[in-house]
Amino acid sequence: MRGTVYVYRRAHFSASHRLFDPNLNDDQNQVIFGACSNPNGHGHNYHIEVCIAGLPDPNTGFVIDLKKVKQIMHDRFLHKVDHKNLNVDVDFMSGINPTTENIAIAAWNQIASYISEGKLYSVRIYETENNFAEYRGEAS
Amino acid sequence: MRGTVYVYRRAHFSASHRLFDPNLNDDQNQVIFGACSNPNGHGHNYHIEVCIAGLPDPNTGFVIDLKKVKQIMHDRFLHKVDHKNLNVDVDFMSGINPTTENIAIAAWNQIASYISEGKLYSVRIYETENNFAEYRGEAS
Amino acid sequence: MRGTVYVYRRAHFSASHRLFDPNLNDDQNQVIFGACSNPNGHGHNYHIEVCIAGLPDPNTGFVIDLKKVKQIMHDRFLHKVDHKNLNVDVDFMSGINPTTENIAIAAWNQIASYISEGKLYSVRIYETENNFAEYRGEAS
Amino acid sequence: MRGTVYVYRRAHFSASHRLFDPNLNDDQNQVIFGACSNPNGHGHNYHIEVCIAGLPDPNTGFVIDLKKVKQIMHDRFLHKVDHKNLNVDVDFMSGINPTTENIAIAAWNQIASYISEGKLYSVRIYETENNFAEYRGEAS
Amino acid sequence: MRGTVYVYRRAHFSASHRLFDPNLNDDQNQVIFGACSNPNGHGHNYHIEVCIAGLPDPNTGFVIDLKKVKQIMHDRFLHKVDHKNLNVDVDFMSGINPTTENIAIAAWNQIASYISEGKLYSVRIYETENNFAEYRGEAS
Amino acid sequence: MRGTVYVYRRAHFSASHRLFDPNLNDDQNQVIFGACSNPNGHGHNYHIEVCIAGLPDPNTGFVIDLKKVKQIMHDRFLHKVDHKNLNVDVDFMSGINPTTENIAIAAWNQIASYISEGKLYSVRIYETENNFAEYRGEAS
Repeated sequence: MRGTVYVYRRAHFSASHRLFDPNLNDDQNQVIFGACSNPNGHGHNYHIEVCIAGLPDPNTGFVIDLKKVKQIMHDRFLHKVDHKNLNVDVDFMSGINPTTENIAIAAWNQIASYISEGKLYSVRIYETENNFAEYRGEAS
Repeated sequence: MRGTVYVYRRAHFSASHRLFDPNLNDDQNQVIFGACSNPNGHGHNYHIEVCIAGLPDPNTGFVIDLKKVKQIMHDRFLHKVDHKNLNVDVDFMSGINPTTENIAIAAWNQIASYISEGKLYSVRIYETENNFAEYRGEAS
Repeated sequence: MRGTVYVYRRAHFSASHRLFDPNLNDDQNQVIFGACSNPNGHGHNYHIEVCIAGLPDPNTGFVIDLKKVKQIMHDRFLHKVDHKNLNVDVDFMSGINPTTENIAIAAWNQIASYISEGKLYSVRIYETENNFAEYRGEAS
Repeated sequence: MRGTVYVYRRAHFSASHRLFDPNLNDDQNQVIFGACSNPNGHGHNYHIEVCIAGLPDPNTGFVIDLKKVKQIMHDRFLHKVDHKNLNVDVDFMSGINPTTENIAIAAWNQIASYISEGKLYSVRIYETENNFAEYRGEAS
Repeated sequence: MRGTVYVYRRAHFSASHRLFDPNLNDDQNQVIFGACSNPNGHGHNYHIEVCIAGLPDPNTGFVIDLKKVKQIMHDRFLHKVDHKNLNVDVDFMSGINPTTENIAIAAWNQIASYISEGKLYSVRIYETENNFAEYRGEAS
Repeated sequence: MRGTVYVYRRAHFSASHRLFDPNLNDDQNQVIFGACSNPNGHGHNYHIEVCIAGLPDPNTGFVIDLKKVKQIMHDRFLHKVDHKNLNVDVDFMSGINPTTENIAIAAWNQIASYISEGKLYSVRIYETENNFAEYRGEAS
């Protein structure tokens, strides 16, 4: 038997962020976001886990060479967020509240069209080992 | 692109249990359940991983605030099972053989109707890092 | 509520391999497979994660006794690959480039028909914690 | 340069226990031990990590063959505690409050004299990934 | 045999920081600290691991009740650094470059004199799983 | 208080090896080394953990910049062993049985004299998460 295989590549980045709604003041943001809304920010060691679905190539045995995926993840996402402040330093997060949900959607949008073999299937962002979010490109 | 996001919250509890069928004697249970049927019980550091699917709120960026999920998991599940004997101390496990499968179903039933935003998508119970079970609310 | 549960069993093996296409020479293989094509091989601590879907038995509470799954995984897969060279020592990998994708498909084929209760749902192979592949038995 | 090497072997066991002082009643034990004193017990996935110090043998390169250490750990410790109740089922824990500290000392005493090459250097017991204790055989 | 036991308690905090020397300008700091000196900061999920050495109490079996240690760690350290900016929000880090080394020393100084049974033996700070530092209270 | 701090840097490499004594035949090696002596080799995802002890610099707060340590580890050790066969491809392992003990000693010898600030305190090699060895430069 032979068919679709789902290949995963995981990587890491360290970033700071502050959750807040710019239409609200600090006290209102504190009510909604709690400690995550500390005005001077806090940070995380994030993990990103990208999944690509496709048929393995009969010659190479690869759905897609993960070295290519590693390069795309670096160029389109990691080098823009690693050791950065997600509220201030990242062009594609501008005006977006950096929740785990929104980072997952943003990462999908940065990466999806660059996957040249197979198709992007899911992007998962771990904020901690206990809190994470996955986006699968489903339209609302 | 924007659509359904799957958010996860993971938590931990330490509990003891004994696997056995009350219609069978100790020797018969030993044949079926092996060491897991030791009459004086044994125990585990369990992990529970809850997944909720939904659209992120445009203002907060949350499918559901994970602090709410944490509270529901505590009130409806964790404080009833943590540092307890699953065969004796837990009302919602009464008469249920505490296999990983049955704990996952019971946790779903305790939690599902309390999720106020998005919908409960899956509950995963890790008995050890090598043995785990997931329930997705599928009817039989 | 009660229905399908997905049970998982995870195990480990240590093996060496070399990625290469026998129709190409060493330099050509180096271009495609990079360091993974080192002629004298390299190796990994692999993890295999098997998932079986089914209804828990009303008496035992098991989809399938994981001790049975452990035995099938050992007999049909692990004892043939653990502490082996995947290019040379493994009958069911003969003529197959040992990418993570191909190991996952091979493991599925070795195990699927031996699962006596429930049905094999997925096989995941971790080459490292950052690179892994999953096969779900989908036909191409 | 060449000299003492410290080799480690890690293993796992699942057990239940209850912390209590038999000279006190349940309420008094609850004050001291809290949830850990639940009368019907609770449990953990414990890890044991044994360290042996010595000079590597010039022929084998081993301080001690870890397969020997694995066997000693199994025969003298693991098969007596795995899937057991530490308060009731374990001869060498009889009359001993099964705190992590006391389990580490008991494991040392079970194993130390059986190490035939090198010397036992430390025994570490993990009750959870956040709580653990190490004993080094130091006299009081 | 019975003697000194080393008990460990591990906890977690999420914080942002920027490494820089206030006597230098941004470019000079960039040369020394690289990406860690991003002016808008970045962040980590830190782990702190505290070790206390002492004789187990003959009645309780505890070197020190880890619930006490947990409370001291919370009151003296964690609630001051968790979800904070280490350069701005933390009184006891004022004027200190928040390297892993300096956080470990600061945590020791915050906690050591509050350990009422046994003695503080080491404080380890993990910035990531690959970078960490330990301080043992040794005078220079 | 201020004094010696121990800083750690952890890295990873994937390699194959075969344990055997060249003075013995395959059957004799099988008796001593078991599955680890498979003639075609096997492999591991190794971890190396280097510890350096010293006083933090008052200006930088570093015992030693871990970026320097990373570079030394790469140049002197990792690029020579990663994706290699430890029996055949590695100059500094020539004629050495690649046990975890001997890899730790070899890594120490490759790295120690290149540590320009602080002193190398220990080198730990993990062959798996359950088997590892540490060398501290102690003379025999």
